[in-house]
Amino acid sequence: MTNERQYSETELLYYMNEAYAEARKALELGEVPVGAVVVWDGEIVSRAYNRRETDKNALRHAELSAINAACGALHGWRLHKADLFVTLEPCVMCAGACISSRVKRVYYGAKDTRYGGFGGFINLCDHEFNHIPEIYGGIMEDECAALMREFFVKLRKR
Amino acid sequence: MTNERQYSETELLYYMNEAYAEARKALELGEVPVGAVVVWDGEIVSRAYNRRETDKNALRHAELSAINAACGALHGWRLHKADLFVTLEPCVMCAGACISSRVKRVYYGAKDTRYGGFGGFINLCDHEFNHIPEIYGGIMEDECAALMREFFVKLRKR
Repeated sequence: MTNERQYSETELLYYMNEAYAEARKALELGEVPVGAVVVWDGEIVSRAYNRRETDKNALRHAELSAINAACGALHGWRLHKADLFVTLEPCVMCAGACISSRVKRVYYGAKDTRYGGFGGFINLCDHEFNHIPEIYGGIMEDECAALMREFFVKLRKR
Repeated sequence: MTNERQYSETELLYYMNEAYAEARKALELGEVPVGAVVVWDGEIVSRAYNRRETDKNALRHAELSAINAACGALHGWRLHKADLFVTLEPCVMCAGACISSRVKRVYYGAKDTRYGGFGGFINLCDHEFNHIPEIYGGIMEDECAALMREFFVKLRKR
């Protein structure tokens, strides 16, 4: 972890807003509202949102789908210059995927104290994997957390 | 972890042999030789092998592909009655996928001391996730480890 977040505040908000727009699509489908974009050299190369229920597939988390699409768009499995923006802290599966695909930096919105793999619940960065992304949490935290609350309020009303 | 492995020795060897046959396909492609099958109610519902280099995709580990295909075959994301047989201990991403998809039991061959997520390097079972599979290592361990050695010997000769 360093203090160098690489992007200006405006850029950070721009990319996280794009991830947030993806998360809203998930909410509209009644999915846990998580959205993600992958940025390479300033450009968004993939975007995705959680579709676990819709696709009936446990792997359709926003991050996994975004990383999958980024590998396709970039024709390679090493995302070593790619940054992942995601509205919720990645779960341990998705955190593992960031390690496997060598994502350079992860910027997330709200912390996930139940499943988070980058400090919210467990912290994979505490272990000496061959690659560990830089992690920056709390980007648009209030908006991202509010979206999650909106989902759970709706869920309880069902 | 319990001592109840559910299958007879013959059944365990049968399923792991099927995973091993998948791993050999990976070896033939010059991939790290890992193979997996998912078993539901005694039937193999999916099988896959590592294709990371071939598909240029960091997510194409045998386990992730087998879980992905199993969700498709079973039309659901909850693999709560499914068992995963895999020749190498799952990495943290794939171990996380076993948790996310609620795989019931994981039977693996060789331990992975560099990336393993079920005790070889780190142990996700030490944490109170909402679901933790039962883990049984060392099934056909010698054969699975020999396959890995064969790969690395070939790699060094290239």
